[in-house]
Amino acid sequence: MPVLNDEVPDNDDFDANRHRGEFDNINPEDFMHNSGSGRGNPPGWLSPSELDRARREVPMAYIQIVPVRTDSMGRVSQVGTLLRVSEDGSIVERTLIAGRVLYHESLREAIARNIARDMGDLALPVLPQCLQPFTVAEFFPTPGVSPFYDERQHAIALCYVVPIAGDCKPQDETLDVEWVDPHGATVGALVDQMINGYGTIMRRALSWIG
Amino acid sequence: MPVLNDEVPDNDDFDANRHRGEFDNINPEDFMHNSGSGRGNPPGWLSPSELDRARREVPMAYIQIVPVRTDSMGRVSQVGTLLRVSEDGSIVERTLIAGRVLYHESLREAIARNIARDMGDLALPVLPQCLQPFTVAEFFPTPGVSPFYDERQHAIALCYVVPIAGDCKPQDETLDVEWVDPHGATVGALVDQMINGYGTIMRRALSWIG
Amino acid sequence: MPVLNDEVPDNDDFDANRHRGEFDNINPEDFMHNSGSGRGNPPGWLSPSELDRARREVPMAYIQIVPVRTDSMGRVSQVGTLLRVSEDGSIVERTLIAGRVLYHESLREAIARNIARDMGDLALPVLPQCLQPFTVAEFFPTPGVSPFYDERQHAIALCYVVPIAGDCKPQDETLDVEWVDPHGATVGALVDQMINGYGTIMRRALSWIG
Amino acid sequence: MPVLNDEVPDNDDFDANRHRGEFDNINPEDFMHNSGSGRGNPPGWLSPSELDRARREVPMAYIQIVPVRTDSMGRVSQVGTLLRVSEDGSIVERTLIAGRVLYHESLREAIARNIARDMGDLALPVLPQCLQPFTVAEFFPTPGVSPFYDERQHAIALCYVVPIAGDCKPQDETLDVEWVDPHGATVGALVDQMINGYGTIMRRALSWIG
Repeated sequence: MPVLNDEVPDNDDFDANRHRGEFDNINPEDFMHNSGSGRGNPPGWLSPSELDRARREVPMAYIQIVPVRTDSMGRVSQVGTLLRVSEDGSIVERTLIAGRVLYHESLREAIARNIARDMGDLALPVLPQCLQPFTVAEFFPTPGVSPFYDERQHAIALCYVVPIAGDCKPQDETLDVEWVDPHGATVGALVDQMINGYGTIMRRALSWIG
Repeated sequence: MPVLNDEVPDNDDFDANRHRGEFDNINPEDFMHNSGSGRGNPPGWLSPSELDRARREVPMAYIQIVPVRTDSMGRVSQVGTLLRVSEDGSIVERTLIAGRVLYHESLREAIARNIARDMGDLALPVLPQCLQPFTVAEFFPTPGVSPFYDERQHAIALCYVVPIAGDCKPQDETLDVEWVDPHGATVGALVDQMINGYGTIMRRALSWIG
Repeated sequence: MPVLNDEVPDNDDFDANRHRGEFDNINPEDFMHNSGSGRGNPPGWLSPSELDRARREVPMAYIQIVPVRTDSMGRVSQVGTLLRVSEDGSIVERTLIAGRVLYHESLREAIARNIARDMGDLALPVLPQCLQPFTVAEFFPTPGVSPFYDERQHAIALCYVVPIAGDCKPQDETLDVEWVDPHGATVGALVDQMINGYGTIMRRALSWIG
Repeated sequence: MPVLNDEVPDNDDFDANRHRGEFDNINPEDFMHNSGSGRGNPPGWLSPSELDRARREVPMAYIQIVPVRTDSMGRVSQVGTLLRVSEDGSIVERTLIAGRVLYHESLREAIARNIARDMGDLALPVLPQCLQPFTVAEFFPTPGVSPFYDERQHAIALCYVVPIAGDCKPQDETLDVEWVDPHGATVGALVDQMINGYGTIMRRALSWIG
């Protein structure tokens, strides 16, 4: 008959220096730069067909970032949006920073990696002390089930507001980062341009910062 | 050359009655009861081998619930823990309500389904108005990377405190639900019995409720 | 020379049954019903001139409540607004439930008391487990300093969303409670009718509930 | 008969440059440095007897700060506590940064002013984007009513975690600021030294940061 197991130590006093098995020779930069230093792809990387299959089987974990500029009193003076070429190259979309959390990647690593991907290595993001998201956005592959739609997948996105202290240099598919006053006259029009629920995330961020 | 697409309507005014494609004939009960009413397994269901493979490829989205009893002023008078037989049947573990979010299942559906699975259909949970979790627990298959360990997978668990207004009838592998005073003398010993980081989630819940 | 005092016990293990000095003979109902059962006014009560003076000297602590109706999955199906006659009796204002926290009154008591005052004793509010407000509204007696204006005082309002499970019977100066679908077509017009920043609090609540 | 007033503009589009009446000639520095630049005491300042009376009449609004040091990934690497001489000069107490919100002072101004008072002008605090506190502590003048005790007053304290990016130079009655690893062996002993509920606030902060 089973007995209550109370011998196993709580994992509280974890030690980041302990052995990580297959991850022993992997350091955060491998996740950050998405390259395996001569060892091929890092853990967490999936081929397009593997990713497609996983996207039809389980919800994907995502992070979404609303980039902001703050003044010396912590007030948000500007909020940023990204202009990107759509996947099929036909149109320009206004979006936020968003990306999939890779296998064995921490949320902090995913946040830092995706900001660096879209804004460059000199963006100097001020990551949150607490990983409680200001909102959780549930994207479904079926339109109308929630305010958030993603034809590729069911994704659960943890959303954060992250101050950017450095210089932005749009990277990758990001054409431009546009900054606007969150209390100004033009922010509403920008939010309305954001599709698939990104505008809703931005509106919630604007409400949350007050 | 791509042009800015601002014609696509925001998904804000979503309509839960619109067509859901392959989900048109699926209703929430199929997710709740994990059965397809003669149509086989519901969407979201994976075979053991498919699940094993997905668990090695992407982070799994989880919800975790700390069940509580509240008084008429909203104060938490009792917190609950579960006693369960471990997967290999050898020991009894003290845990919380936890479960995977299925493909195309909403967080609310996952919360309701997992509470019903462990506590029965008469538990009458009072689900939160806002899906912002009080904490996010990142479980890794490698001990020591975070306070949370799960040998099977990388899991990202959104954690909620949920008042239980009805009667609990332990179900499934759940042997018993034990309730203790969050300010009492015994709660500390109980939390220390919880392994793999569940004790840490409970401690954060106790801090959060104040 | 002073030495480090580490002998004083932490107040953690507080005992609600210990002596409360002048409050020994006061029970919560005295605060709730704002009457001293033959003993005159309860602690916390101030004469109009005392209140006026305090309002010019220190910020007043307030609570504000957005009443909602929820369905069995915790989703907000309706949000409520109040119609009240203004202090000078000349107009009808659309507002939220709001009230001052009295001296020696807990936040929970203030929330319960103000809901009972505006909605009656059968409203059956489901008070929050955690007293972290979804937003903090800073009202100033000077227009334009913040989105919130109160000509009488500087007030710091902790704002909560509270489900109402029972029947509402408008009380006191409250003429009516109106409920609307938070996703419906009319909610915007209602929010626009709310003055002095109440509309902003409602918009933040709507964002917070998702 | 009163009619619904929907003409009054929402205060949303407030303008920080509009006239502030008696505050027109007061700038934030007057609040920050608690001096009126030759004009006597700033608004919000009370004489000891006025303050004593207000403290017996209404709850006082407070802010409390847990100072932290963070690494480049936003993780809290150190938490700070203050050593101060008690009001009567007899003992040294371990506390947090705490202070009253002055009349017509914003929460941001109160946070910045109190950090500067205890840590000097070069502390370079990174104030929060959102003023939602991680917890609200209710101090009562009666021991045992809540985990928080203040013999002088009923105080409602909004509690924030604030990263300190610069150099700390203890000021005023603050003798020293001690920094410890939040995951280290000594943090527990330090928290136990904190009286009147400050230890509880620190424990909640440690839970909140994860």
